[in-house]
Amino acid sequence: MAHTGGVDLGGTKIQVAIVGHGGEVVGQARRPTPTQGGPKDVVEEIAGALREAADEAGMKTSDLDGIGIGSPGKVDDDAGTVAGARNLPGWEGAFDVRKTLEKLCGARVALGNDVQVATDAEFALGAARQYASLLGVFWGTGVGGGIVLDGKPWIGRDAAGEIGHVVVRPGGALCGCGRRGCMEAYAGRASMEGRARRRSNRGEKTVLFKIMEDRGRTRLTSGVWARALDRGDPMARQLLDRAVKALGVGIASSQNLLDVEAIIIGGGLGLRLGHPYVDRIREAMMPHLFNDERPPAIELAALGDLGGAIGASLLISSGERLEA
Amino acid sequence: MAHTGGVDLGGTKIQVAIVGHGGEVVGQARRPTPTQGGPKDVVEEIAGALREAADEAGMKTSDLDGIGIGSPGKVDDDAGTVAGARNLPGWEGAFDVRKTLEKLCGARVALGNDVQVATDAEFALGAARQYASLLGVFWGTGVGGGIVLDGKPWIGRDAAGEIGHVVVRPGGALCGCGRRGCMEAYAGRASMEGRARRRSNRGEKTVLFKIMEDRGRTRLTSGVWARALDRGDPMARQLLDRAVKALGVGIASSQNLLDVEAIIIGGGLGLRLGHPYVDRIREAMMPHLFNDERPPAIELAALGDLGGAIGASLLISSGERLEA
Repeated sequence: MAHTGGVDLGGTKIQVAIVGHGGEVVGQARRPTPTQGGPKDVVEEIAGALREAADEAGMKTSDLDGIGIGSPGKVDDDAGTVAGARNLPGWEGAFDVRKTLEKLCGARVALGNDVQVATDAEFALGAARQYASLLGVFWGTGVGGGIVLDGKPWIGRDAAGEIGHVVVRPGGALCGCGRRGCMEAYAGRASMEGRARRRSNRGEKTVLFKIMEDRGRTRLTSGVWARALDRGDPMARQLLDRAVKALGVGIASSQNLLDVEAIIIGGGLGLRLGHPYVDRIREAMMPHLFNDERPPAIELAALGDLGGAIGASLLISSGERLEA
Repeated sequence: MAHTGGVDLGGTKIQVAIVGHGGEVVGQARRPTPTQGGPKDVVEEIAGALREAADEAGMKTSDLDGIGIGSPGKVDDDAGTVAGARNLPGWEGAFDVRKTLEKLCGARVALGNDVQVATDAEFALGAARQYASLLGVFWGTGVGGGIVLDGKPWIGRDAAGEIGHVVVRPGGALCGCGRRGCMEAYAGRASMEGRARRRSNRGEKTVLFKIMEDRGRTRLTSGVWARALDRGDPMARQLLDRAVKALGVGIASSQNLLDVEAIIIGGGLGLRLGHPYVDRIREAMMPHLFNDERPPAIELAALGDLGGAIGASLLISSGERLEA
């Protein structure tokens, strides 16, 4: 009977799931993240998506045991706030997400880091169910990392898992964080798009931006990259090769330090490019893996696009492994 | 009343300590590691050093509550064996250290990884006493890493902490492990010596090998490096600058992933070069630290040369934090 709500709050979309006790999704909704306004507008949009998903599940949001939110930025579950979410509109300072959403939905609200809850979901219900330690690598606009050790999330002093900022080439490519040579500066979709634009502006040929326009996008989405690859676009192929190389170095370095049982590859690009690219990342890791006689399992995230929302819903059940 | 023995088994020396309940060292001995023979000869030398240290403490080895050994190679405490210790003479296969040493000393024997026990010692009794999570970086012949998270050692599947093999420059300098671009290939004393020799053979000037010979050494020990620095040797300075740069990149990357409270710098070179070099490593980390508003504490190991042996003795008291 007990259901919880899960919200995956991203820079481009809000994904909501209503999740049953065994991890089954009984309702869902997806909305674009508002690009105008401020935190209050975003939280109202979340509430709207939750009502829509609850309705699909034949309930009200106030029937939920609670609502978990996986959020970017600095998440403070004790205070109920999110601050410095730079991909969300007008969201620099701390905003009380809990108070606002509890009032709108009539259910208690718990907050977690977006990447960590997605990792927890893969641990509890997804590709890492059989493992006790894992590193989740979410390859999308940026590259996020989530860590589970001995069955428990490891979040450090609240900022662990920044695998995107493992340095793969000191003094190398400029990263969105302002530093140089981060893994994300090579593998993050935003950085890849920047590089593709610069090369295209210099007159190099690519179908990337044509596909983007044809599909009515304003960004090189994961789907655009996948389609360009399918069409044999050399620039798309080169930039993805470069991304895979960086992922191989950064993930192998992380494994040399952590020695986890499994590495789970998710995120927009990871999910869209799927198993062939998981295989390529595994190959790219091997030359840098110290314990190469015993590599970790390297698997594709199993919960797909819903992983973040399902993981957020687990914040309500304290993230324990569910026996589904 | 209860005393335990601790053994730090290294490639060049065997350091033994007899440790009281509060962590105080009441007896110690140091011997060169045999360069001839095999595992049995090494274990007999350990037993001799233990007898000498116990004698200093006014007891017999059979009076000890137990003996802990911090060892290189593949340590299997369940089986009581050490295998593949490539810096020890004729030690490829698994050798039953426990059975041999228990017979020689009349006390129970526990085994642990050399770097991890040194990290545990800094956590329990040394520079990291006030912290719950730390990364120990042991900068010597190689660069070893030990991890404590939430008060407990994290050893992964037995091979965690290989911070020396975090890649700081893909395709870069050749490492002792056979791979390229590892942090150890720039910062490990063995790699630094190899590079100094090649540069010297090409005719570049340095006092490094002169100091080595004058002091009757066959290797560029930490003391040789420190003396060359004191004399303003440009090659020593350059190679140490290069090492510090690599340490900055690799440790910052590790911190971006782990977000621990403290980083403890130990090892032969770390201890010999001391606080000024800890400061330099901190500076070298900063440009690569994602959470640079909140850097971890970065401190020099407090237990010095005895840290490994003291840490090994803690294997007997299960590595719990002692209230000294």
